[in-house]
Amino acid sequence: MKALILLVLVSAAYGQVPEPCRTPSVWESRVGIQDSMRGFYVRAKLSYDRYNMRIRRIEEVDETREKEYFDVLYLHNTMPGKEYRYNLKTKQCETRMLNTSFRRFEIPEDARPFGEFTIGTKGQPGEGVDVTMWGGRTPDGGEFVGVFTLAGCVPVSDRYFRNESSFDNTDFYDVTLGISNASVFIPPHECMP
Amino acid sequence: MKALILLVLVSAAYGQVPEPCRTPSVWESRVGIQDSMRGFYVRAKLSYDRYNMRIRRIEEVDETREKEYFDVLYLHNTMPGKEYRYNLKTKQCETRMLNTSFRRFEIPEDARPFGEFTIGTKGQPGEGVDVTMWGGRTPDGGEFVGVFTLAGCVPVSDRYFRNESSFDNTDFYDVTLGISNASVFIPPHECMP
Repeated sequence: MKALILLVLVSAAYGQVPEPCRTPSVWESRVGIQDSMRGFYVRAKLSYDRYNMRIRRIEEVDETREKEYFDVLYLHNTMPGKEYRYNLKTKQCETRMLNTSFRRFEIPEDARPFGEFTIGTKGQPGEGVDVTMWGGRTPDGGEFVGVFTLAGCVPVSDRYFRNESSFDNTDFYDVTLGISNASVFIPPHECMP
Repeated sequence: MKALILLVLVSAAYGQVPEPCRTPSVWESRVGIQDSMRGFYVRAKLSYDRYNMRIRRIEEVDETREKEYFDVLYLHNTMPGKEYRYNLKTKQCETRMLNTSFRRFEIPEDARPFGEFTIGTKGQPGEGVDVTMWGGRTPDGGEFVGVFTLAGCVPVSDRYFRNESSFDNTDFYDVTLGISNASVFIPPHECMP
């Protein structure tokens, strides 16, 4: 009987260790990015395809600011990876080799659970959403903190620190599953030789 | 009749200009802060009292990192304002004069509406919360982007850029209205002369 109680208690304790949830693999989202390299807040449309390691990010041009905005396609499914960076102001395209690996917007298996929280308030329906927060180290020596909805494991925010002075903060809004138009992963024609 | 239709159309168009919502004035929250000065992500408990212009921020010590953590009380209801900064590692307190004004976590009247979004996904109940985003300039020449729940106008995130290299990103979780213990605005006894 004592052994049974112990077993039940141990199981209960194990049950409290949260398991990383599985984020959707293919989705589109509006994003807000605080890019430390450029030093301002950018809003963009993001298309994410984990299977083929492709990301397209089309930034919204804010005419009230004297800044440069880009439409960028990252293809990590070639060797080496390729980046097509189309300047929406100058209408020039720059093609680069990618020397970074594809960063997945998901919870790595070795991530530490930081707990469950509510964005907004609990209680009133429609005034909050429950989320789970995870943090850890990235393979390139950086650090990250990721937040995902508890139901559905939809990305909410991603804090990624390459080092103390270089980091990206991304907030995700209006996530929709799947890709609405597959041609989003074809490079802009201005980028083709 | 034509005038009436025009009037209805104009009213409808005006009706679409969103009004800034009124955030609660006194609340507590868990926060995640990306502090560009210190270069890492801090989790803390925040107590906010707009009426008396007081903020207390007690940081969570992460024993796995060699960083300094603080318990800070900002009192803007004195002239000049005062900051009590208690170092949770060294157990030393530093008292400073505040030369900045009290920054309200709310939507200024001259803010620009950036639209309404869903954090998470629409459709499934519990998988998302509707939010409203606003941006603009702060009186000290900085820029901000603030996100609030559509229902209840609860703070969700605050991006505040003093300048291109100095900014705070704050995310709010588990917001509860009111202050659970009023003594939170009394300076720690280590800070008293």
